[in-house]
Amino acid sequence: MVERIAGGITAPDGFEAAGVHCGIKKSRLDLALVVATPPARAAGIFTTNLAVAAPLLVTRDHLHVSQNTAAAVVINSGCANACTGAPGLAAARTMAAQTAEALGCPVEQVLVSSTGVIGLLLDTEKVRHGVALAAGALSREGHGAAAEAIMTTDPSPKETAVRVSTPAGVFHIGGMAKGSGMIEPNMATMLGFLTTDAAVEPALLRRALTEACADTFNAITVDGETSTNDMVLLLAGGRAGVHIGEDEYATFVDALQTVCRELALAIVRGGEGATKLIEITVTGARSTAEAKQAARAMANSPLVKTAVHGGDPNWGRLVAVAGRAGVGFDLAGARVQIGGVELFSDETVFAEREPAAAEHLRGTDVTIRVDLGVGGDARATVWTCDFSAEYIHINADYRT
Amino acid sequence: MVERIAGGITAPDGFEAAGVHCGIKKSRLDLALVVATPPARAAGIFTTNLAVAAPLLVTRDHLHVSQNTAAAVVINSGCANACTGAPGLAAARTMAAQTAEALGCPVEQVLVSSTGVIGLLLDTEKVRHGVALAAGALSREGHGAAAEAIMTTDPSPKETAVRVSTPAGVFHIGGMAKGSGMIEPNMATMLGFLTTDAAVEPALLRRALTEACADTFNAITVDGETSTNDMVLLLAGGRAGVHIGEDEYATFVDALQTVCRELALAIVRGGEGATKLIEITVTGARSTAEAKQAARAMANSPLVKTAVHGGDPNWGRLVAVAGRAGVGFDLAGARVQIGGVELFSDETVFAEREPAAAEHLRGTDVTIRVDLGVGGDARATVWTCDFSAEYIHINADYRT
Repeated sequence: MVERIAGGITAPDGFEAAGVHCGIKKSRLDLALVVATPPARAAGIFTTNLAVAAPLLVTRDHLHVSQNTAAAVVINSGCANACTGAPGLAAARTMAAQTAEALGCPVEQVLVSSTGVIGLLLDTEKVRHGVALAAGALSREGHGAAAEAIMTTDPSPKETAVRVSTPAGVFHIGGMAKGSGMIEPNMATMLGFLTTDAAVEPALLRRALTEACADTFNAITVDGETSTNDMVLLLAGGRAGVHIGEDEYATFVDALQTVCRELALAIVRGGEGATKLIEITVTGARSTAEAKQAARAMANSPLVKTAVHGGDPNWGRLVAVAGRAGVGFDLAGARVQIGGVELFSDETVFAEREPAAAEHLRGTDVTIRVDLGVGGDARATVWTCDFSAEYIHINADYRT
Repeated sequence: MVERIAGGITAPDGFEAAGVHCGIKKSRLDLALVVATPPARAAGIFTTNLAVAAPLLVTRDHLHVSQNTAAAVVINSGCANACTGAPGLAAARTMAAQTAEALGCPVEQVLVSSTGVIGLLLDTEKVRHGVALAAGALSREGHGAAAEAIMTTDPSPKETAVRVSTPAGVFHIGGMAKGSGMIEPNMATMLGFLTTDAAVEPALLRRALTEACADTFNAITVDGETSTNDMVLLLAGGRAGVHIGEDEYATFVDALQTVCRELALAIVRGGEGATKLIEITVTGARSTAEAKQAARAMANSPLVKTAVHGGDPNWGRLVAVAGRAGVGFDLAGARVQIGGVELFSDETVFAEREPAAAEHLRGTDVTIRVDLGVGGDARATVWTCDFSAEYIHINADYRT
């Protein structure tokens, strides 16, 4: 049984956190620290963008050297430390070393993460100050401040946690995330940090994280961009005394997916200028990859996003995107539903049903379903938000 | 020598045109007819969208049956006749038959094209009336009305023509186009119609059109969408008495490219809500295909388009898009220039130069140059427009 509980990233036993202000941002919290006692097993998923930021290089390196063991995760907002060359890499290493020193743990057990302005070097004196403050403020109650400290333009902090009751015992999963609202002044960064007090071996932990992210963090899109800094980390401490083996794996992934989905959908709802959450399901595809590709093409189409924003049940735009998505598609067999209302099928337009679909579009949660018409049985769901004039204003006028 | 001249699509000898109103649209011109005397050699390029509209099916079929001979092109705006199934196909065939009857030519020598609302069946009684009107109004002066009759949301008609002087003699190329402003109410349709009084055999004509379109009509993008109705047609009548063989081919393609580029850039400038023309050149790529893919990804990035709209020399967004474009990319060798001002190279940020780049962005013509840093020698240029709140308003509120 999976129950929602309070406590965010420190809900699982064995984790403490803090969020502090150290001057990277003008006045808001800008440094978060999450500490695992004892050190946890760790797994990470990283951006596919080839312009990889310094903190990602350091974190991947540390996971390798420590053989997937982590005592702490330190995250700053306000400076992405991306496109900063060798000095940036040195700064990210310094940030890890300062944290290791403050906590008395090996440097390779510290994972680092940054989000904020690109092309700006991280000020390690400010970080030193922040790490000292955070190390002194660690507590089970620090989850809220930590979730706040990783925000950039996010409208609100994103955290959640669950208690999972199984025949083998009770364990917890907690998490926090920052959104893909654009960052100062550059792009969408998505960060997700997850903890559990279940015991999971590294290989299984990585498999679980990959699987849980596939239909959650990796199934959302705000504007089709990936960032230089995207990462999702999962730490498993083991203090609950429940060991996740093959038998408990499905239950663990399910619960992990619940946490990831809640955080991922919160990111979409918090997209810049977003007024609606749009769930797009593509069916009848030749493969899951093609279903996902088509759903993603629709989710990133400015024409689809503006139509939903305007409450227009514009099935023609969905058909046209499906036709250019680079996947198997047959107009003769294609179907489009908006809010469960079938608007196009068998090459027939049901214009008289448009008012019912328009009514559905007035809500904040929109569902769209498109069958590609090639008789396949693969399907995929992607979540996105609508496209408003506010998005343009935020991104055009950010530095003016 | 290539000189700009007046006369649009009827500037070449042997072509007449007309643009009339027949009631498909409420009050504006909505049907254009272009007639070649004698019938011309013809070549066409069509949408890659798999949701192909009825008129494209008929036109491709007619080119095949007539062995690339065309006596007329008939185009309506206001109704795309797309997603209309068997009745739509019958309507497109009827439109061709009505035109053939009015002109006394074989039906397979009539090419048909439509743009406008998707999912709406073409009213062939209105078309019959329009074809009769247009057939009676044909003249060398009809080019302007024809260019106007193919418009949907285009802010102005697009036409141009050139006189080409060669050792072999003088010939002309003329053309008209409609833009990728979104159509009632569905998507970007790009139509281009070109004529020449040079004599060109079908195989060479098709090669020339493909080559001329590659860096013009196929190198522009407003929002990454392709339409169900996109087509570019080229008719070569031969009345100038100049035969284009392999020796004259380069001159012909050059001139054709000049005409296509002018029309293509006019389409981008006329993009919905557009305030700036953006030229994006990608260099240092492993292949032309990768250069084009990267340039297109930048051109379609909402973050790049909004930054340019806001006058923000945001090189970081360009680097990030290059990194996720799915092409060879190396941050260490990457370079970004805006308006000729180098803002990032050798992993070094030149923040002090940003005001100069910002000054460039205040103009209406913006140039961006990104080197992918992998040491290749391939390059490509793509044109797009900026993304304004007006775009959102037009596309969100179109039917409300």
